[in-house]
Amino acid sequence: MKYYLREGLVHGGERVESNQTAYDDTHVHRVKLVRALIETGGLSIAATKQVLSTLDSDDTSLALTFEVAQHALGVGGASSGTAEPDARDRIVELAAEQGWKTTDENPGFEVAARALAAFSTIGFAPSREFLDAYASAAATIAHADLIALTTRTRPDLVAELMVVGTVLGDALIAGLRRLAQENETAELFPVPTSLHNDKDAK
Amino acid sequence: MKYYLREGLVHGGERVESNQTAYDDTHVHRVKLVRALIETGGLSIAATKQVLSTLDSDDTSLALTFEVAQHALGVGGASSGTAEPDARDRIVELAAEQGWKTTDENPGFEVAARALAAFSTIGFAPSREFLDAYASAAATIAHADLIALTTRTRPDLVAELMVVGTVLGDALIAGLRRLAQENETAELFPVPTSLHNDKDAK
Repeated sequence: MKYYLREGLVHGGERVESNQTAYDDTHVHRVKLVRALIETGGLSIAATKQVLSTLDSDDTSLALTFEVAQHALGVGGASSGTAEPDARDRIVELAAEQGWKTTDENPGFEVAARALAAFSTIGFAPSREFLDAYASAAATIAHADLIALTTRTRPDLVAELMVVGTVLGDALIAGLRRLAQENETAELFPVPTSLHNDKDAK
Repeated sequence: MKYYLREGLVHGGERVESNQTAYDDTHVHRVKLVRALIETGGLSIAATKQVLSTLDSDDTSLALTFEVAQHALGVGGASSGTAEPDARDRIVELAAEQGWKTTDENPGFEVAARALAAFSTIGFAPSREFLDAYASAAATIAHADLIALTTRTRPDLVAELMVVGTVLGDALIAGLRRLAQENETAELFPVPTSLHNDKDAK
């Protein structure tokens, strides 16, 4: 909490005595939000600040909130630089095939294109079926994300769920993907009965 | 390259003259792999080392490679600590409903449970439909992941794709999810014609 205060991620409390500060529900809420973004979402302090300032501003439409949030989150672990044009073209094509209405500024193009370009550096050329499966999964998730937003009515809470949901949803799908992978692996690559201390089983 | 050498992520070249070192295809390949893991996958130097040492060891089964890779990658941006038992129980239940055969050690449980617990800190309780959509998307992706592995025959290249694919696949689905979200948002929350400089449109 002190660290978050110092970094300006949580607003200061009201000084009630010379050595006491009062915190209310808004502080508790904010600390939970900051924790979710940083500890579970893996966001940097800088990205968290950007996201919070978007949530705190009153004069933005929901669409703009989403856009700013996407930009703050879109860069993730990726470094600067632009993905190879070929990879970007393939993602643009994939989005068009799905019938997605998007704008060129959507950071998803860059994030996806970089991943695609990185696959090719290890000599893996994703097939059409591979990309279609990913796109179809993305559509399923995004639909669930937006349905979730409609369960909230207060604009500030919708914006909060948009932003936090983008971060936490990435973590949720990553976790579930690892579980589903183990299931698929067990079918395609049978596991020795004792995995950890049984090299003879290999 | 020098930085990767210094960090022990890339093996040294052969000294051919007092001031010259020879690098071969194995160096080029390794540098590309390290770049993909760090720059696109967002892995730390430490996690990258762990993944590479798994790939470099000869005496591991593919199942073990996958397990080690999953552990190296599973913690992602998440800090230490254990998710609330309730959240973990719900993910265990979700995996069981999907009929997934998994082991308790799969880090996906922890990653997904933490995301779920973090959702509840902002007062969002994911519905059964929300979680089912995510689980179904995870199954679609994991199936495509494993089909991709079967296109390779050399065990070291299968292991490489397993590991790199886990990292890059997370980035790929995150990027495509943002594109699909924009499409869904445009349908549910119509966007002002000029998003950037038109506050009056709000």
